Amino acid sequence: MRQNPPAPAANVPLAVIGVIRSAHTEPETTPIQAALNRAGHGVIEIAEPYREGLAGLDGFGYAWLLTWLHRPGDRRDADDGEEPGAGEGRGDRGGRPPLRQVPFLLRRQRRQMGIFATRGPRRVNPIGLSLIQLLEVTPETVRFAGVDVIDGTPVIDLKPYVTRFDRPPGDPPCGWFDEVALGDGSTPAGLARPEPPA
Amino acid sequence: MRQNPPAPAANVPLAVIGVIRSAHTEPETTPIQAALNRAGHGVIEIAEPYREGLAGLDGFGYAWLLTWLHRPGDRRDADDGEEPGAGEGRGDRGGRPPLRQVPFLLRRQRRQMGIFATRGPRRVNPIGLSLIQLLEVTPETVRFAGVDVIDGTPVIDLKPYVTRFDRPPGDPPCGWFDEVALGDGSTPAGLARPEPPA
Repeated sequence: MRQNPPAPAANVPLAVIGVIRSAHTEPETTPIQAALNRAGHGVIEIAEPYREGLAGLDGFGYAWLLTWLHRPGDRRDADDGEEPGAGEGRGDRGGRPPLRQVPFLLRRQRRQMGIFATRGPRRVNPIGLSLIQLLEVTPETVRFAGVDVIDGTPVIDLKPYVTRFDRPPGDPPCGWFDEVALGDGSTPAGLARPEPPA
Repeated sequence: MRQNPPAPAANVPLAVIGVIRSAHTEPETTPIQAALNRAGHGVIEIAEPYREGLAGLDGFGYAWLLTWLHRPGDRRDADDGEEPGAGEGRGDRGGRPPLRQVPFLLRRQRRQMGIFATRGPRRVNPIGLSLIQLLEVTPETVRFAGVDVIDGTPVIDLKPYVTRFDRPPGDPPCGWFDEVALGDGSTPAGLARPEPPA
């Protein structure tokens, strides 16, 4: 863990309850989902005013990590599938992300999806939702497995995973995800390659 | 569905992508979790600028509904377990919710938990996370089963449920939830009663 954490990211319109410490520093080479990177470990450093809120969390196996994806723009060029003539997919001049994008997992096919049918980071409100496995809860930190965010990402909420609330019955249809292969450790950069890495 | 939707709630620091239409108007009598009210149906009215983002969502069985819980304060008196001497659980004068609260499900026991170990609505950032079952996606609306929010609640994001990302393996420990009975249709008001309703 670093001794000198960077200053909190600018432009987070919500209270920042903590910050992620992760081995990843570039969105393009960061796994796209926590579940696809259970081998990766990270730490949430909870800001001092909020630490008391961790009481009782150590009894849970998993939690929902809500983050503010402060650098989704890094992925802009590669993510929005902007080809000549694909004008409807463009973001507007105010920097709003396009409402149809090519998800990382559909880069090879160049298929666009509505943003509310994707889990991509360039959202109307760039809130990330990651299912993390809790490894250790200390009075100041949460160590976890399953890292899909870069170092320095602001944390805006943490909620316990409750099977009764969060697991739908059976095996529900998962739209276009049912048609794509989800490899462990998938990253945007890896998914942009024309051939899967050997 | 109403013909004259109320004006958007004030003080949402994020873009409001839509609004919930629900039969519930009071937090105290609204089921505490979507999974405990699958018989309840609701509608998300997507605001005009964001409707294109729904493309592809109809292939999914479930989705994560992220809401701005604009009226969590309604539940204040009953929720924070403030008893004489329980000073550490108090919110500060700035209106910040207390970091330790008595969850609805622990009202009878009067047990406090850290806010990050609960799913309660009075959070540092009042973001609600509900697993909804998708019934119908039209170009302007999403009809869903599983209602745990009141009519008029602002919607800030919608993400598809992806089993591979969102279902942890096995049956993970769920902390204090493993010790409480979770009845269908549980509401804060119902859980405050000394005896369960007949």
